[in-house]
Amino acid sequence: MPRFTPLIDSLPAAVPFVGPEAQERALGRPFAARLGANESVFGPAPEAIAAMERAAAEVWKYGDPENFELRQALAAHHAVAMENIVVGAGIDGLLGSLVRLLVEPEVSVVTSAGAYPTFNYHVAGYGGTLHTVPYRDNAEDPEALLTKAAEVEAALIYLANPDNPMGSCHEAGVVQSMIDRLPQGAVLCLDEAYGEFAPAETLPALDMENPQVIRMRTFSKAHGMAGARIGYALGAPRLIGGFAKVRNHFGVNRVGQAGALAALGAQDWLAHVVAQVEVARERIARIAAAQGLRALPSATNFVTIDCGRDGVFAKAVLEGLVARGVFVRMPFVAPENRCIRVSAGTAADLDAFEAALPGAIADARA
Amino acid sequence: MPRFTPLIDSLPAAVPFVGPEAQERALGRPFAARLGANESVFGPAPEAIAAMERAAAEVWKYGDPENFELRQALAAHHAVAMENIVVGAGIDGLLGSLVRLLVEPEVSVVTSAGAYPTFNYHVAGYGGTLHTVPYRDNAEDPEALLTKAAEVEAALIYLANPDNPMGSCHEAGVVQSMIDRLPQGAVLCLDEAYGEFAPAETLPALDMENPQVIRMRTFSKAHGMAGARIGYALGAPRLIGGFAKVRNHFGVNRVGQAGALAALGAQDWLAHVVAQVEVARERIARIAAAQGLRALPSATNFVTIDCGRDGVFAKAVLEGLVARGVFVRMPFVAPENRCIRVSAGTAADLDAFEAALPGAIADARA
Repeated sequence: MPRFTPLIDSLPAAVPFVGPEAQERALGRPFAARLGANESVFGPAPEAIAAMERAAAEVWKYGDPENFELRQALAAHHAVAMENIVVGAGIDGLLGSLVRLLVEPEVSVVTSAGAYPTFNYHVAGYGGTLHTVPYRDNAEDPEALLTKAAEVEAALIYLANPDNPMGSCHEAGVVQSMIDRLPQGAVLCLDEAYGEFAPAETLPALDMENPQVIRMRTFSKAHGMAGARIGYALGAPRLIGGFAKVRNHFGVNRVGQAGALAALGAQDWLAHVVAQVEVARERIARIAAAQGLRALPSATNFVTIDCGRDGVFAKAVLEGLVARGVFVRMPFVAPENRCIRVSAGTAADLDAFEAALPGAIADARA
Repeated sequence: MPRFTPLIDSLPAAVPFVGPEAQERALGRPFAARLGANESVFGPAPEAIAAMERAAAEVWKYGDPENFELRQALAAHHAVAMENIVVGAGIDGLLGSLVRLLVEPEVSVVTSAGAYPTFNYHVAGYGGTLHTVPYRDNAEDPEALLTKAAEVEAALIYLANPDNPMGSCHEAGVVQSMIDRLPQGAVLCLDEAYGEFAPAETLPALDMENPQVIRMRTFSKAHGMAGARIGYALGAPRLIGGFAKVRNHFGVNRVGQAGALAALGAQDWLAHVVAQVEVARERIARIAAAQGLRALPSATNFVTIDCGRDGVFAKAVLEGLVARGVFVRMPFVAPENRCIRVSAGTAADLDAFEAALPGAIADARA
């Protein structure tokens, strides 16, 4: 037998998410609407597609391990220095590296019960002890996170703002107040993957002096490039510099680098996507209301729908949608698991959702 | 200050390799010939380029986290089961996961002094103790690796066959004999990144029953897709299954997945590339000989050239080439660092190398 480390032996072969392709293979047919992973069905900017097409023939070259051009452009975009930015294989990859920097056995980490499971996967993977606090009014609870972090002397705190899976957000002032009161030695990982979809006053100002805060951003959501695996983190050089000790330097795809650089320049496309998402959110809410279900307010590219009963019922609705060819997901933890989560889609996607929902609800009630 | 773990605090901010782009930025101009990273200047198969171009617009979707289609095709290609295969972000990424599975502080690992530094980077990164044995006759020394592994009770042994940076290889029987005598509990990581370029009798038969051996393969070299970051490992399910506990499930680029699948089907292109590499190897040897330098035999897509003096001299030759716009690299450790390493190039690339070499040697002698 291979001699896995004791930590590895203790881990389950956990998969944070089953992909839609695996579900399609199980169903024996492709989904009619792919609305479960908060991907951007509106796609990447035409300029980004063109840049990736051009880069395809150049893929014999490794990508620049410094991600120089992309970091230079991001630095200009955010008015920060290049040393404030690390690029990685999506926020997932960056979360793994961040956890590795800060977490080992006996180290405490705080998150919300039902928040992003891939973060929890990394914490378990490095032997950390995860402490959770419940959601409050369908939102993560900054005060509870702070209190728990102080209580357990957490090295790391996770907050997504806007939140996934509930779609809620806190105003910048609330988050800033949390930042101002972080326990000494604790780092706040502020996951802002959905930031572009939120009201303007949602994201606190960037403060690249504070080594206790790291901001996670991505090209996977509003930029429509989930498959490219390009995320980045913004923070103080003392914190960002740590990634150089552990990251897979040549781990970022060259075609993705080219696409992200072009996408960053295509701010018109970003505005177009955000507008399309607003239209889709409103329609999803109307579709839900027509079936007597309540859509929660959303600051993201998805809408979380309260199915009005318990997790068993919501799961049945979800399964009814999946069986009808509509890929959606749902929160994992009670009482938020009374909801299903539907990503913004094209008109055709939402036609499919609208057609499938009544039957899914009827089946769930039966 | 962020509370990095003691292990992280102990690590240097090491970069295994400086990329050619960083050197180009320092030089202020692009290289005339990019022959330092053993990339395939012959490019990916036309079918792979076309597949990546088609995939660009679909990059709004995450890649399949199971890499199902690619693993299915690889399983058919190698006549193994899908559960024998894990796909990752290049061999670099897979080496990181493998080390993480097996190595923690107090665990011994064995490699050759001067072998692949990214492996060493991962071992240090997980706190392992690296033991090295010297090269013997410009090749890694299986007997010395075995002896050292038994002596230090190694959990992991690294052997590249064919070898990088020396280009040498062992016959399959030599490696099989090493496999047959592995110390109990030790895993042999057999890095076969350059396997397609080697004589037919180089790679031992695949044995998917033996949990002590893992075989690393890549689309970065012969398939010409270094920038796509698609590597894979072949092994027994007990060992391969461990990766599911730690890997970044959504870490593989979707465009790369599509390209790799198409590249695997383009075996004619692979044969064409291997033939081109042979032509280039012969020419590199002639160019070296014309300057009184000896090219070592190569089973890879690069040629290691003995500059005939010490590491200081070879480094001066290398710097002369770089200053003349020819990107090459060299072994890190004496006495192998008396050599420089030149990747197979197009005729134009090798024209540039041929033009630059005499001046680089003259400068080094001066």
